Amino acid sequence: MRVPTVKAERAIRTRQRVLLAAAEIFDEAGYENAAVSQIVERAGLTLGALYFHFGSKQGLAEALMNAQPATIEPHLESTGLQRLVDITLVWADRMKRDPILRAGVRLAVEQGSHGMNDASSFEEWRALMRSHLDVARSDGELREEVDPDRLARFVVGACTGMQVYSNLATKRADLMERVCDMWDLLLPRVASASVVGDIQVGPTRVPVS
Amino acid sequence: MRVPTVKAERAIRTRQRVLLAAAEIFDEAGYENAAVSQIVERAGLTLGALYFHFGSKQGLAEALMNAQPATIEPHLESTGLQRLVDITLVWADRMKRDPILRAGVRLAVEQGSHGMNDASSFEEWRALMRSHLDVARSDGELREEVDPDRLARFVVGACTGMQVYSNLATKRADLMERVCDMWDLLLPRVASASVVGDIQVGPTRVPVS
Repeated sequence: MRVPTVKAERAIRTRQRVLLAAAEIFDEAGYENAAVSQIVERAGLTLGALYFHFGSKQGLAEALMNAQPATIEPHLESTGLQRLVDITLVWADRMKRDPILRAGVRLAVEQGSHGMNDASSFEEWRALMRSHLDVARSDGELREEVDPDRLARFVVGACTGMQVYSNLATKRADLMERVCDMWDLLLPRVASASVVGDIQVGPTRVPVS
Repeated sequence: MRVPTVKAERAIRTRQRVLLAAAEIFDEAGYENAAVSQIVERAGLTLGALYFHFGSKQGLAEALMNAQPATIEPHLESTGLQRLVDITLVWADRMKRDPILRAGVRLAVEQGSHGMNDASSFEEWRALMRSHLDVARSDGELREEVDPDRLARFVVGACTGMQVYSNLATKRADLMERVCDMWDLLLPRVASASVVGDIQVGPTRVPVS
């Protein structure tokens, strides 16, 4: 692993400051109503720094949409099917308080309304979930008839819609419960008989931070 | 049943013309970019007629969000769990070609970006699905541990997100396949052993029209 230079470290911090400021404003106001000048002001930086790192307002939105898995995965140690469950539980928990995650989800769902049309954040989630399901398969955790790629596609879609509905109905207060309901429905169907009793589902799976 | 008068019939037709024109424009352009003047022009009516029937642009958006189940239910004759499946299959099929349905779904999902915050179209779908699940329960079609209200909530959320993802990834070409995948995952888990083999899933369930 290369040790970042002081200059590279500063660039990473600057990039992160812009991302956070943009996330807060996109999350509050939506893409259309967010002004680049407002983002720059909140980040305490220059317009030049924003354009240097992200190219444009749309580049910033794309970076936020694609930052989602990176905010979840570092918190987890489980493998296979348990990790898939844990990803969704940590996601449900962080959606309540992480503006970068919230902005990423909101921008991905509403992108049609601001002229973007990019499934890549969904496909990235799907590939990540699929990779954990491939581990589950080789560890004998999945029933034979389960297709890991289709299951991953379904879980990504279901989480997306649960979030939209939960946000409108309860400001996400019941999002965790909805994710647990999903696993209550899916696990007995997808987990092999030898592991189904071992997979844990619930808010206690979320690491304290 | 009261026979509508000529005047009432004309009002219904006018309302429908405005709804269709608005749906086409919201579906193409999104809420923010849709101009009321453009809707009126496409409907071949006056601005007065639009405001008489819907009050405002937002009133029009609300009417479209809430028109969704009414465009699906009349096509179906099944009951219980099969009807729940059929609702989602007909929905997947009509999303490809019914602008009123497409606009309703788009407006419901993106409403945060134009200052609305109304879960009622989601709750209406949920109540409808729940009512069919109550029939399924009393006909012995549901496993005992299944909670009809939570299952309805999950299906509404899952369909919402599947649609967003399918639209971005394939312009809804795979939406029907995704809905079938959902039932392949859910049915063995929720249907009682005596009926699970009888529930039919697939595009052939969609009535020709």
